[in-house]
Amino acid sequence: MEKVSSLSELGFAHDIHHALFRPIQQAAPPSPTNRQTKISVIGAGNVGMAIAQTILTHNLADELALVDAKPDMLRGEMLDLQHAAAFLPHTKIVASPDYSVTANSDLCIITAGARQLPGETRLNLLQRNLALFKHIVPPVAKYSPGTLLVVVSNPVDVLTYIAWKLSGFPPNRVIGSGTNLDSSRFRFLLADHLEVNAQDVQAYMVGEHGDSSVALWSSISVGGVPILSQLTDEKALIEQGVLEKIRKAVVESAYEVIRLKGYTSWAIGYSVASLARSLLRDQRRVHPISLLAKGFYGIPDDCEVYLSLPAQLGRSGVLGVASIQLTEEETARLRRSAHTLWELQQQLEL
Amino acid sequence: MEKVSSLSELGFAHDIHHALFRPIQQAAPPSPTNRQTKISVIGAGNVGMAIAQTILTHNLADELALVDAKPDMLRGEMLDLQHAAAFLPHTKIVASPDYSVTANSDLCIITAGARQLPGETRLNLLQRNLALFKHIVPPVAKYSPGTLLVVVSNPVDVLTYIAWKLSGFPPNRVIGSGTNLDSSRFRFLLADHLEVNAQDVQAYMVGEHGDSSVALWSSISVGGVPILSQLTDEKALIEQGVLEKIRKAVVESAYEVIRLKGYTSWAIGYSVASLARSLLRDQRRVHPISLLAKGFYGIPDDCEVYLSLPAQLGRSGVLGVASIQLTEEETARLRRSAHTLWELQQQLEL
Amino acid sequence: MEKVSSLSELGFAHDIHHALFRPIQQAAPPSPTNRQTKISVIGAGNVGMAIAQTILTHNLADELALVDAKPDMLRGEMLDLQHAAAFLPHTKIVASPDYSVTANSDLCIITAGARQLPGETRLNLLQRNLALFKHIVPPVAKYSPGTLLVVVSNPVDVLTYIAWKLSGFPPNRVIGSGTNLDSSRFRFLLADHLEVNAQDVQAYMVGEHGDSSVALWSSISVGGVPILSQLTDEKALIEQGVLEKIRKAVVESAYEVIRLKGYTSWAIGYSVASLARSLLRDQRRVHPISLLAKGFYGIPDDCEVYLSLPAQLGRSGVLGVASIQLTEEETARLRRSAHTLWELQQQLEL
Amino acid sequence: MEKVSSLSELGFAHDIHHALFRPIQQAAPPSPTNRQTKISVIGAGNVGMAIAQTILTHNLADELALVDAKPDMLRGEMLDLQHAAAFLPHTKIVASPDYSVTANSDLCIITAGARQLPGETRLNLLQRNLALFKHIVPPVAKYSPGTLLVVVSNPVDVLTYIAWKLSGFPPNRVIGSGTNLDSSRFRFLLADHLEVNAQDVQAYMVGEHGDSSVALWSSISVGGVPILSQLTDEKALIEQGVLEKIRKAVVESAYEVIRLKGYTSWAIGYSVASLARSLLRDQRRVHPISLLAKGFYGIPDDCEVYLSLPAQLGRSGVLGVASIQLTEEETARLRRSAHTLWELQQQLEL
Repeated sequence: MEKVSSLSELGFAHDIHHALFRPIQQAAPPSPTNRQTKISVIGAGNVGMAIAQTILTHNLADELALVDAKPDMLRGEMLDLQHAAAFLPHTKIVASPDYSVTANSDLCIITAGARQLPGETRLNLLQRNLALFKHIVPPVAKYSPGTLLVVVSNPVDVLTYIAWKLSGFPPNRVIGSGTNLDSSRFRFLLADHLEVNAQDVQAYMVGEHGDSSVALWSSISVGGVPILSQLTDEKALIEQGVLEKIRKAVVESAYEVIRLKGYTSWAIGYSVASLARSLLRDQRRVHPISLLAKGFYGIPDDCEVYLSLPAQLGRSGVLGVASIQLTEEETARLRRSAHTLWELQQQLEL
Repeated sequence: MEKVSSLSELGFAHDIHHALFRPIQQAAPPSPTNRQTKISVIGAGNVGMAIAQTILTHNLADELALVDAKPDMLRGEMLDLQHAAAFLPHTKIVASPDYSVTANSDLCIITAGARQLPGETRLNLLQRNLALFKHIVPPVAKYSPGTLLVVVSNPVDVLTYIAWKLSGFPPNRVIGSGTNLDSSRFRFLLADHLEVNAQDVQAYMVGEHGDSSVALWSSISVGGVPILSQLTDEKALIEQGVLEKIRKAVVESAYEVIRLKGYTSWAIGYSVASLARSLLRDQRRVHPISLLAKGFYGIPDDCEVYLSLPAQLGRSGVLGVASIQLTEEETARLRRSAHTLWELQQQLEL
Repeated sequence: MEKVSSLSELGFAHDIHHALFRPIQQAAPPSPTNRQTKISVIGAGNVGMAIAQTILTHNLADELALVDAKPDMLRGEMLDLQHAAAFLPHTKIVASPDYSVTANSDLCIITAGARQLPGETRLNLLQRNLALFKHIVPPVAKYSPGTLLVVVSNPVDVLTYIAWKLSGFPPNRVIGSGTNLDSSRFRFLLADHLEVNAQDVQAYMVGEHGDSSVALWSSISVGGVPILSQLTDEKALIEQGVLEKIRKAVVESAYEVIRLKGYTSWAIGYSVASLARSLLRDQRRVHPISLLAKGFYGIPDDCEVYLSLPAQLGRSGVLGVASIQLTEEETARLRRSAHTLWELQQQLEL
Repeated sequence: MEKVSSLSELGFAHDIHHALFRPIQQAAPPSPTNRQTKISVIGAGNVGMAIAQTILTHNLADELALVDAKPDMLRGEMLDLQHAAAFLPHTKIVASPDYSVTANSDLCIITAGARQLPGETRLNLLQRNLALFKHIVPPVAKYSPGTLLVVVSNPVDVLTYIAWKLSGFPPNRVIGSGTNLDSSRFRFLLADHLEVNAQDVQAYMVGEHGDSSVALWSSISVGGVPILSQLTDEKALIEQGVLEKIRKAVVESAYEVIRLKGYTSWAIGYSVASLARSLLRDQRRVHPISLLAKGFYGIPDDCEVYLSLPAQLGRSGVLGVASIQLTEEETARLRRSAHTLWELQQQLEL
């Protein structure tokens, strides 16, 4: 599916490239070790394509591979990106339903996933997605045994755990997009209210992506100024009560977008592209993402769950987890999420 | 629709901004002459949103306004863009079905338009779109009397003419995206075949956007090397016959994307963003876009049609039209298109 | 000095532009209200040129004006920047010893200044620089009455005060680069030691730029994690003693660069370009810069001094000053600096 | 020389990184195959530093190594770049007089070179530079046996030949910056005169960098419009005479910058950074650069000289040489330059 159309079949001179360019003498053949950065996106729906397009615009890859089970739509998306060639740096864009197209990726991003049917239990949905991931993760891991893996499909925490197990990769190379986007929404809400730049707002959502996420009140600062320290004790007490409302507004804002436009795409596209940059360019930046959380904040070592915590990301994946001071209640919530997820995972047949 | 949600309604301290930031003494109030760059996109469908998102990623505007008749979908798209705030430079993003939200724009991009119904005549479609533009263009022109206007809706040439007439603007401020994207597809096909960077391929499609466009064989060069001069006369003759096939492949490739994925979005997004950059940053670059073509290449002065020709774009819109040498056949095709469009326009009640 | 050389004097066709491009019919003349962003740099030495080149690379201006008293060197620098045109977006670059070249700037950056002579007292140096600024600031203010003013010349705090007084501008439009770069050095030292990305390190130097600057221990956080909270009380006490050493290392590192290479250029170039972006693109970001500090932290209202404090910057200049909690000692140091500067300023004849 | 200063020597907690970040369980150690892009710049004078800074700003490398014989100045330049860390993506910057610091580079750029002494013959200067390159090229090649090599030092054509010979590399991996910058100056002069964007001007200087360079009149086009075809035959004849004057103006403009400011830096910095991008990001773009020219345009196969011709550059270096149609006079000039250089090279003891 690489060539858009065969100009040579149209009679276009086969040898015009050679008429235009001639090699210099004694030139060595291209070295196989001259490898470029390759990113694969599995699932070319709204989320996958927003991620692919943002990666392309930000010039994060030398080669971009798309995989989807629907060959027609997939080819349409590939062509649509390729047609922008005159406006973008030179990037090789390939697409196929066959995973061989992802071979030797540096980063594979999985966005494919079944959607919840009306009346379907969460467990049932998970089992369907488990079945799906059994067809996705092993070929991805086979064709790119050294790749980093970022799972975006929902429920992201359990599916990242599943991807980790199915890949056989060390856990630092398998992460989920987790609460990276929730934290951006949190920062936007605060920045919009405070009339500051969201990039100057520091604020984390951690834990389970979705309804049970935890907003870290103590982590909020604006331009280096902790918000809490600006409040009198009495006021802080009142504000504490408000935080839960804000957290719910953040969680609700994702649902609102889905209700209004049917899905989310742009923000998750930017969010995952920011992870791709930190990983592949070895930026060592801190992002709240879903990672193997056992052993942190009192989560038992035998409780193998993925939850979002702020982590330093680089070319090796997760470099370390930031030691944030949580309140007792925050810690309790984290553990509760961990327990729930662990129970759920016991019911899955990996 | 500007504020995502009212944190203050949630009880969040009204005065926390003032607790965080205090003005310096003797500060002057913000000057009203400190204006920023504002871009409005009319129509928040796939095309409009791909344009809006690319403009945002490329940081081309300080304020971005979206208008669409569907308030729910529109709000969803606005929120989705806003949620990416932490990953992007600070841009004000607003949206409303009311055109007042576009006030004082520097550039308005119209992507709204009715789609052809099964069995509908071209004229009938045009009349429906004319009715639509009568509701779009006058308020756009009223709220931003100095704005540049770029029409993307199809059929782009006639609709740009209509927008020009309805706006009352001088014609240099009203253009259509025209064959800018067709030319990029042309360049991609050639670059892909020749294994070169599309940015080094110079090649124009001109004339009417769509089936009757004209590919300029003589304009094709690669890295400054004209392709024609590389061919023997005999070969050139053969290749000449091939060009029409390539032109058809370019035209077909747009239809192919629509057939495969249902619409085009990414490439037109990049294409229009490149126009926005040339216009607003006064880049004086040459793009093939739809412009008032009377008087060029023998098109009579009383034949007021818009057709695509390579033009230099800057802060005042169209700065000039490049004088390309056309063959007799190419000139004849251009005039034929002009005549057809003019006939069609006579049937419209503006 | 705008035209590099007159090709037409060489006999190059006067009318070739018109042969290449023809205007469309009925085109309106360019509107005078279509203004672009203009930045002027006063002083084309190592610092001024590093700033100018970084502004150019970051595409922050549509027009760049350089002013220096040495016309030859100035023309050489202008030509050197212009020769890169094929590698950069289209920016108009002009230069002249005459301030009229700066007319209608949005931002003027003053880097000119006398250097300390061996054995010269600080007061004497200041008086010489005051004399210099009397020739710089009034014409700058005359030609661009609405401009923002950023002073980089040293001693930056007093010279920014002088520029404010000489300009007659409201103080929110006159700032000094202050400790913006010191803070970056502070963040680099910490990031390098902690093996994290400096952009994830939050840390401020405030107060007087130079030997008396104040490093804010409580402001240091990494990826949103306050360093202080990670230390036991006992350890924090020890570390507290260390902070002063780090602060001195930061101050020393600037002197070290000057001693080693004769001046600093690259880092101040990036630092001031970051201010230009926040100001002109209305980014509302927080930077520690030199501002009119009376009334803050107990500095008396009649003590009109400029000192660095973290401030939110936007299109109107200083939008507000961040309310950071200082220790008593830190506050005392700030007041001491304010007092010293005020005493010094009394001796100047403005 | 990597660590700016040892904070730990200042008593800063050794273990604070571990207090801030903890590894996840079962994490694998970083894989040695996860390599990043490394660029080395040999010679940290004005040219070398302008190149290094532009590469840094354009984010083209994950690691940047500087080598110079003057350790103090070198350390000053390194620190000055490092201090900008808070304003730039995370890049490792190292510096040393020892070439081991360049180990495993993807691209090495040589800017070091002796300057012509008053009254010194060209041959004598070359012999001194040959002696210098014997100390530079072998260690560079030893520490990075797979690197691309770009020579910037002058006389660039002979020194690139010398670097090729000393390196033992295949010639596609050794190029000189050649007339890439001359061509940009040519494009700027034309663009400035024609009031167009220099990026829309196609125009090549080829051959020997310096006084004997050849401006290709037939290659000049603006926005895809060949200038020659716009002129009547009579006029073209007149203009032909003008071209040589323009070529001289281009050559003179480089000398003018040197005479005015003492050296050139900014433009060569952007020029070489553009080569670095095409090479390392495998952009396949066409640049006029110095390459092994034997066999082209009738230069005999035993005449091993480097001359500038438009070439397609990618990750393997020179991918091909564009087949431009030269006039007989242009071809004759090229051969003459080749012959002169070959004669000169015979006098060198490699």
